[in-house]
Amino acid sequence: MADKVLIYSRFPKTMMARFAERFELLDTAGKPAQEVFSSDKLGDVRALLTGGGRPLGAGAMDLFPKLGAIVCYGTGYDGVDLKTAAARNIAVGHSPGANAASVADIAMTLMLAATRRILVADQYVRSGDWAASKPSPMMRPQAGMPGRRIGVYGMGEVGRKIAARCAAFESEVGYFSRSRHDVPYQYFPTLEALADWCSVLMVAVRAGAETHHAVNADILKRLGEDGYVVNISRGSVIDEKALVAALTDKLIAGAGLDVYAKEPHAPGALTALPNVVLAPHIGGHTLESHVAMQDCALANLTAFFAGRPLPYAVKTA
Amino acid sequence: MADKVLIYSRFPKTMMARFAERFELLDTAGKPAQEVFSSDKLGDVRALLTGGGRPLGAGAMDLFPKLGAIVCYGTGYDGVDLKTAAARNIAVGHSPGANAASVADIAMTLMLAATRRILVADQYVRSGDWAASKPSPMMRPQAGMPGRRIGVYGMGEVGRKIAARCAAFESEVGYFSRSRHDVPYQYFPTLEALADWCSVLMVAVRAGAETHHAVNADILKRLGEDGYVVNISRGSVIDEKALVAALTDKLIAGAGLDVYAKEPHAPGALTALPNVVLAPHIGGHTLESHVAMQDCALANLTAFFAGRPLPYAVKTA
Repeated sequence: MADKVLIYSRFPKTMMARFAERFELLDTAGKPAQEVFSSDKLGDVRALLTGGGRPLGAGAMDLFPKLGAIVCYGTGYDGVDLKTAAARNIAVGHSPGANAASVADIAMTLMLAATRRILVADQYVRSGDWAASKPSPMMRPQAGMPGRRIGVYGMGEVGRKIAARCAAFESEVGYFSRSRHDVPYQYFPTLEALADWCSVLMVAVRAGAETHHAVNADILKRLGEDGYVVNISRGSVIDEKALVAALTDKLIAGAGLDVYAKEPHAPGALTALPNVVLAPHIGGHTLESHVAMQDCALANLTAFFAGRPLPYAVKTA
Repeated sequence: MADKVLIYSRFPKTMMARFAERFELLDTAGKPAQEVFSSDKLGDVRALLTGGGRPLGAGAMDLFPKLGAIVCYGTGYDGVDLKTAAARNIAVGHSPGANAASVADIAMTLMLAATRRILVADQYVRSGDWAASKPSPMMRPQAGMPGRRIGVYGMGEVGRKIAARCAAFESEVGYFSRSRHDVPYQYFPTLEALADWCSVLMVAVRAGAETHHAVNADILKRLGEDGYVVNISRGSVIDEKALVAALTDKLIAGAGLDVYAKEPHAPGALTALPNVVLAPHIGGHTLESHVAMQDCALANLTAFFAGRPLPYAVKTA
């Protein structure tokens, strides 16, 4: 009999087909598990697969008395109550680095699209305004990449890849992180100092209680009226209300966002703005990154059912 | 009395103000010169400033019997009839490399925006389709940058900068150029071979008779159904009708274009497509690149009126 895996989030059909080759899936498709399956069925569940940002606290874990492994698809695990998991001896795994390049690339895409105003530019061509030589204040030239100061917040695998890409654009790169890393970029001891220095802030820090609303009204104001913020981490790292206010009041020039406070919802005040580029959390959304993340998740599940430690376990400090 | 400069193309007011500090400007604002100024006035003109892509043949030069210098704003000079200019002993100058980083950056912006489908993504968020979990075939995952084969057509200053940036994205980079260069990228002896190999073709070659419609239906077909073409050179390098057909018939996956056959017009068949990203010839359109290009043009004009050779003369083979 195949080992059972509870699917806690909603995942694509093609991905589920691959997992179904190895395990018996109890697929909730993102609905509350107790609404989809009987408590008998849930009582048998020893492992579950989840999107790491989805809330998974003590109450949810209580639904699965035999739960031994929580496997997160992707790098993040901020939705998982790690303390409760540890207290109940539940192993927690994720896919570290599997999507780092793909996420770094969406950060670059959002930064370039926002600073070069590619949405406005595309619309200017498509609408016929270009052909009509219609004046467009939004199309005024902006500062380019050479010499631009890019601040990277967080120097994990994604942050490093963002920094390396920015350096190739002839930009200056600085960073803030809890600790100094062996990287060829200028270190700033506080996020405030980094924000004072840079004109683009790339948010690549791990989400959690420590970084909740770390990018607040004060940090945004420090970026200045030519400043941009790009977030590919989690919505929780930015105070979204403060961001909307800063963008609306033109305290900063623009933003590129792949993540939001309450996904899949982006606030209406944000979606009405012309100076933002918005993506629906597609950072890790490339063919090879999905394959790599699936490989990690399958390896974690396989090891768990074989009684071995998870090869890609979440490392808690 | 200030030296007179005929302004042959339409340029921004702020730029004209800077030139007016040094010269007396006869500004056509892009209209036919003989409609704006008397033939007496035109008869005095010894130097003109033009956008290098704007047609400037023997007939137009005949309007200015005393013409001694044609100064192109930007790198390109494909609109200028160099043979006639040489026969009439007219010096031709441009702004080599001044906008290379800015143009390379728009190439990267267009490539990333097209391959990661950022226009569709932004619309998916803004429309509320994401919040409604509406299926979107256009949002299916695509291949990312690591391991992608990027073909750069032309290895001048812009081509080199594109190649260096792509390498930082962990992509493989190949190129075709009239001759092999001392660069760490794979050389292909023909454009056909490059197109067979790559999945993104970056058009960065100098425009001219030799490269007119070099990217034709055959080259596009070789890119394949997962292939993209990005053009930041001149519209004339691509057979635009063949491109529209290839995009419409899905012989290739998409395109990112900053230049068109007949600017400022983009064909309606192109502006109706969802799998293209269109920019209104803004490659060199950054603050620092405008300043650098203006510096070159001012230096060329100043040298000419002082009886010296142009410091940024067009080098003809």
